[in-house]
Amino acid sequence: MLPDPRDGLALIKPAVRGQSAYTLEASQARRKLNQNESPLDLPPELKRRILERVAAAAWHRYPEFAPATLLADLAQRVGWTADGILVGNGSNELIQASLTVLLEAGDVTVAPAPTFALYRLLTAVLGGRYVPVPLREDFSYDLDALVEAARRERAKVVVVNSPNNPTGSVLPDGAVERLLAETSGFIICDEAYQEFGGPTALPLLHQSSRLIVLRTFSKAMGMAGLRFGYGLAHPAVAKEIAKAKLPYNVNALTLIAAATALQDGAALAERVAAIVRERDRTIARLRTLEGLTVFPSAANFVLIRLHKVPARMVFQRLLSEYGILVRDVSAGAGLAECLRLTIGTREDMDATVSALEAILQG
Amino acid sequence: MLPDPRDGLALIKPAVRGQSAYTLEASQARRKLNQNESPLDLPPELKRRILERVAAAAWHRYPEFAPATLLADLAQRVGWTADGILVGNGSNELIQASLTVLLEAGDVTVAPAPTFALYRLLTAVLGGRYVPVPLREDFSYDLDALVEAARRERAKVVVVNSPNNPTGSVLPDGAVERLLAETSGFIICDEAYQEFGGPTALPLLHQSSRLIVLRTFSKAMGMAGLRFGYGLAHPAVAKEIAKAKLPYNVNALTLIAAATALQDGAALAERVAAIVRERDRTIARLRTLEGLTVFPSAANFVLIRLHKVPARMVFQRLLSEYGILVRDVSAGAGLAECLRLTIGTREDMDATVSALEAILQG
Repeated sequence: MLPDPRDGLALIKPAVRGQSAYTLEASQARRKLNQNESPLDLPPELKRRILERVAAAAWHRYPEFAPATLLADLAQRVGWTADGILVGNGSNELIQASLTVLLEAGDVTVAPAPTFALYRLLTAVLGGRYVPVPLREDFSYDLDALVEAARRERAKVVVVNSPNNPTGSVLPDGAVERLLAETSGFIICDEAYQEFGGPTALPLLHQSSRLIVLRTFSKAMGMAGLRFGYGLAHPAVAKEIAKAKLPYNVNALTLIAAATALQDGAALAERVAAIVRERDRTIARLRTLEGLTVFPSAANFVLIRLHKVPARMVFQRLLSEYGILVRDVSAGAGLAECLRLTIGTREDMDATVSALEAILQG
Repeated sequence: MLPDPRDGLALIKPAVRGQSAYTLEASQARRKLNQNESPLDLPPELKRRILERVAAAAWHRYPEFAPATLLADLAQRVGWTADGILVGNGSNELIQASLTVLLEAGDVTVAPAPTFALYRLLTAVLGGRYVPVPLREDFSYDLDALVEAARRERAKVVVVNSPNNPTGSVLPDGAVERLLAETSGFIICDEAYQEFGGPTALPLLHQSSRLIVLRTFSKAMGMAGLRFGYGLAHPAVAKEIAKAKLPYNVNALTLIAAATALQDGAALAERVAAIVRERDRTIARLRTLEGLTVFPSAANFVLIRLHKVPARMVFQRLLSEYGILVRDVSAGAGLAECLRLTIGTREDMDATVSALEAILQG
């Protein structure tokens, strides 16, 4: 029924064929702690207000080309200028657009290792060269090594995720200033988890046009299903990045949801504070267990390393015996025997700590 | 307040800086005939069913990684295999992903001229070279010239939009077979308007793995605001294209809307038939006017060329005196004095024909 695939495959760029696709095992579980999502859906009253506006919207019309009110509200929230803000179908789209306008064949992206897998995949697909720089053994950022690698490789881009996924580590104060001062490419600060802790590079937008800061509504704002992120850069740079971003890239329903949720900033900030408290309580409880190391985290997840029982077995037993789905990251660079646990509700975390205790004693 | 933009701009690829961004004048008008949208929103009962499911969905969770039921329903609709279907945030995203995995620096994209502007922009941004091949004077496809250019340039990709935006012209029967037989790159058939008329390349997916067919829910399905498109290719090719497509690229609300609307195929097909009737009636009425040429169209829009009054003036008078917003395409290659009119309701088109008559006689 199907034709020979070889004709088509022969035309695909070798750099693409050499990459593994981004994948995720789709498992069902009672407690879903594998994607760093918020444990709570939007407050029902907020959801109702959004749905009212969505029902009244014209679905057959293209979304706004540049959603002026939303951009103005975001500008006020972060203290930046509206014409230096790009909205994206998730912040991933803005990583993609930024790398697309920067990387020519062979250009280098420097990033810490381990980190979010998409930076490597997109760099390779775009014909760039990806140079990972190991974090220290305790997963703290090695800024000297990052600077050294960026200078040695004349990196076009340095991508730093802070707090870093999947380790939870944050850039030290002054790190982005130093990267801007001592290297000559763009610094992309992916601050997907910044609301949960750590410094922000936002103020540095006023000092350098070689900086891009990315934010998302998927984590702290609890809207992963709606796909909304935004990027901040000098307006002249934003205008160039926009050329690699598709027109009408954020759908009308998501634009309505994002604009409406922005009005509820205080209520959503309280939810973030609760997750931070739950994270710190979880870390403290995990530290009382034997057979694992808990790494410090400023994000809405915690990385642990298993010493007594193989991580893969712990992952499987959590899922099959306790209905707890975490992320097995143990195949990643430097992540041997590591699992990543998203911070869920208090009940989720009590169940997870108890289950780990039972598995490690068993 | 803002830093010097030169540091940042100097790092942007020259090929990007040389391109104009995709833009659209955001005008308000009573009759919006400028974006080839459906004149009607989804039927209220369908919208209500979608909103019920959307209200019950978990917005804080990422969308499905591969929406199995939707893919199966699409596969059945088009007669292709589900693992050869990619869903996109509009079909534009699948044009982008396809070009990204195919074009290395200097690789050539061949496409007719005039056509949809995004093919040129994305090719340039990705470092490729765009070779436009003029349509004939009556805007019919010049297949000999396309084949000749693709062979001469060893084109990695030939993109054909059929019906073609903004001309409405269709590929002749057998054209894609000939392109596949006589050229050696990929053929991307953008069938965004195919439901309104003209042949489809879908059956050829069974014969060649060098073919990508793109479809959208923005036009015939009347869901431009929701951003949903899909691409069809050999499963092995689709797997490669997926590497340039972001994970979770279609939001949960749009996935629900698309899946629900697919169940209403018959009702939506009747709407398409009504637009086709209105198009043909409009073309016949426009042909009775003096001072303009009407080009044949198989799409949900009609291209006209003005002879007595400048197109820009007709555009302005339609908007300011009659509240009718059409698309001024007269700056495009070969499109001097041309306007594109989206087919709206019968009332919209009666008003438009009468307004044109008055302006041309005035």
